[in-house]
Amino acid sequence: MHLTFIGTGSTSAAPLYGCHCDVCTAARKNPTLKRNPASALIEAGDTRLLLDAGLHNLGERFPAGSFNAFLITHFHADHVQGLFPIRWGVGEKIAVYGPPDIEGCADLYKNPGLLDFITIHKFEPFNIGEITITPVPLIHSKPTLGYCLEWRDTRIAYLTDTVGFPPATAEFLRLWQPTQLILDCSYPPRLNMPKGHNDVTRALESIAQVQPQQAFLTHIGHELDTWLNQHPDTLAANIFVASDNLVLGA
Amino acid sequence: MHLTFIGTGSTSAAPLYGCHCDVCTAARKNPTLKRNPASALIEAGDTRLLLDAGLHNLGERFPAGSFNAFLITHFHADHVQGLFPIRWGVGEKIAVYGPPDIEGCADLYKNPGLLDFITIHKFEPFNIGEITITPVPLIHSKPTLGYCLEWRDTRIAYLTDTVGFPPATAEFLRLWQPTQLILDCSYPPRLNMPKGHNDVTRALESIAQVQPQQAFLTHIGHELDTWLNQHPDTLAANIFVASDNLVLGA
Repeated sequence: MHLTFIGTGSTSAAPLYGCHCDVCTAARKNPTLKRNPASALIEAGDTRLLLDAGLHNLGERFPAGSFNAFLITHFHADHVQGLFPIRWGVGEKIAVYGPPDIEGCADLYKNPGLLDFITIHKFEPFNIGEITITPVPLIHSKPTLGYCLEWRDTRIAYLTDTVGFPPATAEFLRLWQPTQLILDCSYPPRLNMPKGHNDVTRALESIAQVQPQQAFLTHIGHELDTWLNQHPDTLAANIFVASDNLVLGA
Repeated sequence: MHLTFIGTGSTSAAPLYGCHCDVCTAARKNPTLKRNPASALIEAGDTRLLLDAGLHNLGERFPAGSFNAFLITHFHADHVQGLFPIRWGVGEKIAVYGPPDIEGCADLYKNPGLLDFITIHKFEPFNIGEITITPVPLIHSKPTLGYCLEWRDTRIAYLTDTVGFPPATAEFLRLWQPTQLILDCSYPPRLNMPKGHNDVTRALESIAQVQPQQAFLTHIGHELDTWLNQHPDTLAANIFVASDNLVLGA
């Protein structure tokens, strides 16, 4: 099973509109430093899943028929905005698995077009192709699910957006023992508990709770990139900062 | 006063996701044939206005400080989706003029960030810089305003999305006498009255009501492009099909 980070950015990822900090200026000059909205491609055997849909040019990058389904963590615009144009396409329906959220985002439910929205529930595993997926609840301002993806002896947990874990999720992850844990870490360390997203302090606490083989921070804002540049030796040897187009399991 | 068509496409514009008709295939091969979401840049003296915000990479194309305000026709995703990332930027507030619509789109009102939403009302003119703008009501599935833009002896009416005109709008336009009328024309001729958007038949009827010096069709779907290719001599000499990056008044 391979995971490709399509995007690793938060809503304030570099280059942020109107920002001229060193990180945003560098990302504007060098597109390889840019962070697109946090999302990933999962590939195992013949199965290809898109995890979130915030990429603006999703339809160009993933033409019809090039993947099996979407898994949506939650219905904030930066995680679903790529669905707006795709829904009006032609061809077979596209399954979009997501959390119970009566609102969705804008008129996606009212005018789904090609999209077939399928509500899934916490701790109820299901299969797509050869991949077994267990959704786990997260702590965010909208109903949000993380995804625990299992294929042969690889177990990847993809967990955005969240600040900490609900106790049942922490317990599940501790027993499930991910080979790779991918975690929301939007902000540098903050004195007070952040809202909706982890700062570095809470992300490291969450990783310590689960004890995965490896952890990757994603959903990164420009202020965290600035802080990481200033504190290059903060992270343990098995904790990495993801970047766009990084491939795990290659 | 110059108007640049940033986009001239409907939600089913070429290249449409999953479509392999001749028009969509050609637009995929040749990016100059692509139609982005219908939107425009207006420039007069030092004033630069963005008319609708459906372009996905709006922030890259129009950096902070490069324009004065947005005029939004209505709050469907294909007309406002470019605002989702921009709102989280830093710097001065950006004025977003739009119709009275208590819903807006997704959480734009709840989390406006940089955006300063200003509700405007039909037939109540206002000025931005040297441009005088009169909003006129249109006929669509959400509250929608067209914009009549006046600068010196140039009068441009930009009218999407609509099927026909309310009587008061038709009367206003007939008296106002636009030098250029830009009009929603999404579909080839249909037997029955189309919903939400003009077909060719209703667009030509609307143009005949107003009698502008010139008319430009926009908000064009791939089926209309196909039909136009098959009927190249349908339009009168003063009626044009707009294309992305066409500039009026240059």
